[in-house]
Amino acid sequence: MQTKILLDEEQMPKRWYNVQADLPTPLDPPLHPATHKPVGPDDLKAIFPMELIKQEVTTDRYIDIPGEVQDVLRLFRPTPLYRAFRLEKFLKTPAKIYYKWEGVSPAGSHKTNTSVPQAYYNMKAGMERIATETGAGQWGSALAFATMLYDLECTIYMVRSSYTQKPYRKSMMQVWGAECIASPSTKTKSGQMVLEKDPETPGALGIAISEAVEDAATHANTNYALGSVLNHVCLHQTIIGQECREQFAMVEDYPDVVIGCVGGGSNFAGIAFPFAGDKMTGKHKDTDIIGAEPASCPTLTKGEFTYDFGDVAGLTPLLKMFTLGHDFVPPSIHAGGLRYHGDSPIVSRLVHDGVMRAVAYHQSEVFDAAQTFSRTEGIIVAPETSHAVKCAIDEARKCKKTGEEKTILFNCSGHGNFDMSAYDAYYAGQLVDYEYPDELIREAIGRIPKIQ
Amino acid sequence: MQTKILLDEEQMPKRWYNVQADLPTPLDPPLHPATHKPVGPDDLKAIFPMELIKQEVTTDRYIDIPGEVQDVLRLFRPTPLYRAFRLEKFLKTPAKIYYKWEGVSPAGSHKTNTSVPQAYYNMKAGMERIATETGAGQWGSALAFATMLYDLECTIYMVRSSYTQKPYRKSMMQVWGAECIASPSTKTKSGQMVLEKDPETPGALGIAISEAVEDAATHANTNYALGSVLNHVCLHQTIIGQECREQFAMVEDYPDVVIGCVGGGSNFAGIAFPFAGDKMTGKHKDTDIIGAEPASCPTLTKGEFTYDFGDVAGLTPLLKMFTLGHDFVPPSIHAGGLRYHGDSPIVSRLVHDGVMRAVAYHQSEVFDAAQTFSRTEGIIVAPETSHAVKCAIDEARKCKKTGEEKTILFNCSGHGNFDMSAYDAYYAGQLVDYEYPDELIREAIGRIPKIQ
Repeated sequence: MQTKILLDEEQMPKRWYNVQADLPTPLDPPLHPATHKPVGPDDLKAIFPMELIKQEVTTDRYIDIPGEVQDVLRLFRPTPLYRAFRLEKFLKTPAKIYYKWEGVSPAGSHKTNTSVPQAYYNMKAGMERIATETGAGQWGSALAFATMLYDLECTIYMVRSSYTQKPYRKSMMQVWGAECIASPSTKTKSGQMVLEKDPETPGALGIAISEAVEDAATHANTNYALGSVLNHVCLHQTIIGQECREQFAMVEDYPDVVIGCVGGGSNFAGIAFPFAGDKMTGKHKDTDIIGAEPASCPTLTKGEFTYDFGDVAGLTPLLKMFTLGHDFVPPSIHAGGLRYHGDSPIVSRLVHDGVMRAVAYHQSEVFDAAQTFSRTEGIIVAPETSHAVKCAIDEARKCKKTGEEKTILFNCSGHGNFDMSAYDAYYAGQLVDYEYPDELIREAIGRIPKIQ
Repeated sequence: MQTKILLDEEQMPKRWYNVQADLPTPLDPPLHPATHKPVGPDDLKAIFPMELIKQEVTTDRYIDIPGEVQDVLRLFRPTPLYRAFRLEKFLKTPAKIYYKWEGVSPAGSHKTNTSVPQAYYNMKAGMERIATETGAGQWGSALAFATMLYDLECTIYMVRSSYTQKPYRKSMMQVWGAECIASPSTKTKSGQMVLEKDPETPGALGIAISEAVEDAATHANTNYALGSVLNHVCLHQTIIGQECREQFAMVEDYPDVVIGCVGGGSNFAGIAFPFAGDKMTGKHKDTDIIGAEPASCPTLTKGEFTYDFGDVAGLTPLLKMFTLGHDFVPPSIHAGGLRYHGDSPIVSRLVHDGVMRAVAYHQSEVFDAAQTFSRTEGIIVAPETSHAVKCAIDEARKCKKTGEEKTILFNCSGHGNFDMSAYDAYYAGQLVDYEYPDELIREAIGRIPKIQ
């Protein structure tokens, strides 16, 4: 009974897998926010280094991971693949449940997989500072970790509701030398505008993005970095799924079901894209690939597949994606990292085309699942991750009914050590299951600019 | 450049190493608190299961780890041994620095190595509940994790100063189904007595121990468990040092210096005893084995080697150890896990006999070291662990002066994710470096009962 399937450092993937190479049809291009014309590399140069812009658009199947990036990733990678024997036994399921444990990185989640290369390419491009936003704080702390290792400054706009709920993520960023500011802030025009309308706003990822983009665009030594959504971010995360494939080969297995939680889509992309590639190229045609999102921010399950802005202020290019409308402000659920109106264009396309599918859950049921997981496997997961746990448990329970011995894999994307106030609220019976009225979602979607 | 030296699950030690087999002279026996006669197994049966009592006194060199205990330990063991390349480079030292990373367990520290077997033996003995104390919360959460897996109830008396500073350790215990009570409490006579004298007391480990022992002694279905100090606890931790020895063999190296922080002594014992065994049996005679303790609770560096109680109320047997006096209440430093007046009898004996030595540090200098470590290696350590980091950095700096290429090993015993308020205080310049006046220490030592 092997609990952990481990890879040696030499077995860490040396290349990222680019699923764009295997899409049946190419992605719709991002459009300029003002002209609605396709944006070119020049439009993005103000906030991104050229290497990341290239990675955003290339259709090369593999992209080499620079040696200096591999050196840092080896501080915590390859990560273990666990067989969840205790959870299986508790559920009395014939299914085999595996989870990829990304919480072993110093920042405690998968986000470091992309913060490290992003900081590296910005350092190589001569940048001195990076501005970014963060929801629950996983991305902000991961970028603080990476910028520190490459001697860059870092400014992080943290969604206020999370800033208040999770003060110690901010402390973590401080240990690693970064500056963390509650968003919306008075430091940017975007933030000032939102505060004028609603001084008590809990904030949202879309607002914090506006602030960080504005900060980067108005300072010559500063670039912007995004922790999810964009193609190059999803690309960097594919190291997760590639490792999983090697680990499954070691135990001569292959997943029937692949699961990740979805906010902007990067951890889901990370575990899913290598398996989606196998599916689209016909190697494994029947893999069921599922994104689990919050019912209070149901982008993939209730959003529209259309062009929309990535941020509230309309500063970013328009992306073709599932969206609830760029001014949709989701309620302050504890899974702060999943509170985003849009989704990765590639994930959106693959869900739209039926290669992947999505489910939505309420927060009390995902915390039930997280408790089951913590009391069997021991790990206390982040509220975001609990959506993937819930989905895996649901799939395993279906197998109990049908008797199917499916192999289920989910991405255990991060630990909950900085989210204990959410667990406190759960045990105090204070979690609210927001039913976002469909008509309000339709109204927000109605405010999306119509692109011809 | 291999960063992590990993063992497979099959390479996890199957036996604990008992350093009592290799002591030049046997330990002085524990004495009954009232009669001052050596205590026998019968005296301990009221609060410990027989298997642990046997382990406390045996001089067998190796003790088998039960298969069901190994199954649980495999959830996080073997743990990685890291080569601290980035720290070495930053320090410009010719020394090689290695650290054993125990923070990968679900509870985040080495404490799980003993909480799991302790819960197991109590379950086997038919117990229904375990009562214990905890300082910083590492031990309490580790025991909550272990009792949950073996279906036992768990009551934890947590030192009040830590209970207030670290509310999320309590949340963690709740997730795993345990009850956590601030100590001193009104639930026990020991607690009531202390509160009558000083209602505002920050508490101390010695007080919390009295409460937990009283709870166990007065409930038939309840045993007591201790997270440090005792011989069987140190025994269970030797899995750490044994793994290190195997990992060093893989890279054909052996440490010249072995370091651990010391409160009750268990994580230090865990990494040090296998190397102390090699030293005492003449295999490696020159290993420098160093315990790092807080200057505000300088048990090994300023205490007396004599018989004393393990707790404030005088309920425990008298142990021959270094002690500052059982009613010594150390100041509320952030390294709550090191606030203990006594020390492991075996560690004390080995320090007394010159096999090991000890150093003491102030809290601002250990936080400086922790920051250096976090900004090079990425890991944010617990305040307790930062004492070992400080000692390793000091030893590496000595090598820079002398040009010696020593191999330095330290136990990176736990992460600081639940200690961020301590880092906040550090950055706010609010840390106090307590200089405990020597005459107060002498007075407390003077109150120790004189044993003929």
